[in-house]
Amino acid sequence: MSKKLPTRQEDYSLWYNDLVKRAGLAENSAVRGCMVIKPYGYAIWEKMQRQLDDMFKRTGHENAYFPLFVPKSLFEAEEKNAEGFAKECAVVTHYRLQSDPDNPGKLRVDPAAKLEEELVVRPTSEAIIWSTYKNWIQSYRDLPLLINQWANVVRWEMRTRLFLRTAEFLWQEGHTAHATAPEALAETRQMLDVYAEFVEEHMALPVVKGAKTENERFAGAEETYCIEALMQDGKALQAGTSHFLGQNFAKAFDVQFQTKEGGREFVWGTSWGVSTRLMGALVMAHSDDEGLVLPPRLAPIQVVIVPIYKTGELDALLERIRPIQMGLIARGISVKVDSRDTERPGFKFAEWELKGVPVRLAIGARDLDAGLIETVRRDTKEKLHLPLADIVQSVDQLLADIQTSIYQKARRFRAAHTHRVETYDEFKAALEGEGGFVLAHYDGTSETEEQIKTETKATVRCLAFGEPDEDGVCIVTGRPSARRAYFARAY
Amino acid sequence: MSKKLPTRQEDYSLWYNDLVKRAGLAENSAVRGCMVIKPYGYAIWEKMQRQLDDMFKRTGHENAYFPLFVPKSLFEAEEKNAEGFAKECAVVTHYRLQSDPDNPGKLRVDPAAKLEEELVVRPTSEAIIWSTYKNWIQSYRDLPLLINQWANVVRWEMRTRLFLRTAEFLWQEGHTAHATAPEALAETRQMLDVYAEFVEEHMALPVVKGAKTENERFAGAEETYCIEALMQDGKALQAGTSHFLGQNFAKAFDVQFQTKEGGREFVWGTSWGVSTRLMGALVMAHSDDEGLVLPPRLAPIQVVIVPIYKTGELDALLERIRPIQMGLIARGISVKVDSRDTERPGFKFAEWELKGVPVRLAIGARDLDAGLIETVRRDTKEKLHLPLADIVQSVDQLLADIQTSIYQKARRFRAAHTHRVETYDEFKAALEGEGGFVLAHYDGTSETEEQIKTETKATVRCLAFGEPDEDGVCIVTGRPSARRAYFARAY
Repeated sequence: MSKKLPTRQEDYSLWYNDLVKRAGLAENSAVRGCMVIKPYGYAIWEKMQRQLDDMFKRTGHENAYFPLFVPKSLFEAEEKNAEGFAKECAVVTHYRLQSDPDNPGKLRVDPAAKLEEELVVRPTSEAIIWSTYKNWIQSYRDLPLLINQWANVVRWEMRTRLFLRTAEFLWQEGHTAHATAPEALAETRQMLDVYAEFVEEHMALPVVKGAKTENERFAGAEETYCIEALMQDGKALQAGTSHFLGQNFAKAFDVQFQTKEGGREFVWGTSWGVSTRLMGALVMAHSDDEGLVLPPRLAPIQVVIVPIYKTGELDALLERIRPIQMGLIARGISVKVDSRDTERPGFKFAEWELKGVPVRLAIGARDLDAGLIETVRRDTKEKLHLPLADIVQSVDQLLADIQTSIYQKARRFRAAHTHRVETYDEFKAALEGEGGFVLAHYDGTSETEEQIKTETKATVRCLAFGEPDEDGVCIVTGRPSARRAYFARAY
Repeated sequence: MSKKLPTRQEDYSLWYNDLVKRAGLAENSAVRGCMVIKPYGYAIWEKMQRQLDDMFKRTGHENAYFPLFVPKSLFEAEEKNAEGFAKECAVVTHYRLQSDPDNPGKLRVDPAAKLEEELVVRPTSEAIIWSTYKNWIQSYRDLPLLINQWANVVRWEMRTRLFLRTAEFLWQEGHTAHATAPEALAETRQMLDVYAEFVEEHMALPVVKGAKTENERFAGAEETYCIEALMQDGKALQAGTSHFLGQNFAKAFDVQFQTKEGGREFVWGTSWGVSTRLMGALVMAHSDDEGLVLPPRLAPIQVVIVPIYKTGELDALLERIRPIQMGLIARGISVKVDSRDTERPGFKFAEWELKGVPVRLAIGARDLDAGLIETVRRDTKEKLHLPLADIVQSVDQLLADIQTSIYQKARRFRAAHTHRVETYDEFKAALEGEGGFVLAHYDGTSETEEQIKTETKATVRCLAFGEPDEDGVCIVTGRPSARRAYFARAY
């Protein structure tokens, strides 16, 4: 706790990495590119999971679990998908170790235990799931099939960063099957809206909803919708995707159904996912140079109470604090009373600031006598003196205010960092300046997109839904364009 | 739904397998030995998870997440553990696929992408977790460290059975570190008690608590405690284990701490786990020839309402049923109204019997007029006519009765299938008869245990806690014995 965090200004990337570690969210492991999610980080992830899971169930989805491994022959079946993920697959080739005759006490792979067919550790589960759906779907009565899975997946990344890009990560993946294309498209959009609602309402992070260009589309999808959020360094982060798969996987795995009219047709698919990457977005969007700033709805501890006392008076003070603690708990607020006798208040303040606890109450006997409680909100560091008489109600209201306030701040940040540009020079200047979203016209070709990416490191984040038609010309080629696209450098 | 299940009498093993599949719990997948857990099965597992997770948290544990992969060199570090699991390890050797030049459109392992060090897919996580604990534990202030993980693990089994023995399974694994041996032993016992409470109170299944013999101990543990349950075919099933690891892993990974007195000592460890195997136990312990019998506390649907109506009257009837449905929901009871217009009541009855829904209400307009509701409890198939006036309260009480009643039935079954024998002939006769637990004296040696296993397929399930001292002689060698052990054939 002694060492200060690097500031965002000094080194945003180092600040992020240090913060994730020092706040107890995650750390690197002995396995290249894989992280350990520590208890405090996992507690936030559990809150995310619970909320998302409730939202999936409310929209009619059920959870199931499919195998970790995908036999290579199944993996190959949808060619674009296979091609897209082949370069980052962990592959199981053997099923046994044996004593190493050359190294006593050591083990080696048993060459006699080679698998006939290699197993890919799932980078995503379309292949294994669609091979199963073939048996689950015979008739229109079996549709729609609305399934979600919470699971770990592995994508062998060369450069990894805690939460943002790790070889193994945790996620949920929804996989649905429908009788018609419009129904599948509606599901694709519905789940994007669920994600957007979650990220805005719970993570307090505004998002832009839109469609990916072909270049950025999920391998095997006809259409990829996404939500894009802006981080404090002006880079965008893709926070969730929802894919319309057309009949691609149905054809690859021969999933047909009997229609009401007695015909046979391939089913239409969707898939959609968010991952522990959201943890990275949460940290990068709101936190400051003192540490995490957690939105109250996702904070494992919403209120910390630090007793202020003289030697020998702690127990008596804790007794007097108990009614406040119990009142908060009864209102469904999670409270921690930091009664450690080994640390001073200043140390505790700094620690809970680092961990992003939204509200801190510092309570001494004198405050209780005077009927005023020193209250500090983490987001603005504003100090309030709240009347003891209705402290529970005031804190509850304060938590709601903080949730809104963090969201509004992020909205203002995004507004201040969204630039409409008319020329390629302005485009580059915007990126080189403070970054952010750049709304520009381009001719919609992959080539131009690729050129912009090579020259500026910015990509089309999305073609935003609801973006108005507007005649314009491509900033690179001068060709006509009917709508602006969202560009940004991105995580 | 048309085909009948095989009966338990005809073929217990086939009955089990068919039931698991036809009730929609799980099925085999395209991956050898791996299962797909279907939505209805997963919903039961989620209820188990939620309950266990609450119990772990109430006893002070936090969740975290550690990598799926274990580098071979870490895996080797605790030799007994490594030796115990080496024969069933899935091993990742490569991290990339590439186009197969000999087979257009196919992929092959890229020989250039061989890992320097192989990665074992975790069969259990002691190695990876203790290598992490080394950095988390410096001082007695860091202890106890009480962590749990929900995860998938892989053990390459040659003969697999849905839920009972699969190559990949889902589980939780607790891993704790303590300053003293007595404290670690107390934790080992506490978590066994938590498991026993869960299995008895929620799964309605009585268990014997005890210690494993050295032969049956977890690889790397000093002591393994277990809970053993009895299935309807007279075979035992180990439902959960809790291990006292001594300082074995602390020494293998050099995890030392500074004591209060300023010395340095190795920490003491425990680990404990239950898995989706519990799903198998749940099915095998209570179900009958018509299908599942689920204890109400774990049933995803606790009450099904089947409307009985004439053509054209369904909507009006559903309107009248709604207050009952809402009343049950308001009381926290999960209800399904089976309003399908495509199936007849008899078909629906059979389907919900197969799925083990504890209470069925068949409701027609006449029943509502008469104020009496036909109610069938799944466990005994008893039919009751409950007054409409307090139907919600009556159903709630009935669910509680069923929970108790299923448990009592299992207790009676176990009592009737527990035999005390004095000779090896009696021992064999008991096993060849109806099976069950056989309480016998033996001399406590590994050799005798091994001989009994070879000759009878029965193993020592446990040395039960609280089993009274009793002078006796070994049924095989005639040597003296101070207490009886629990023997059984087992899953």
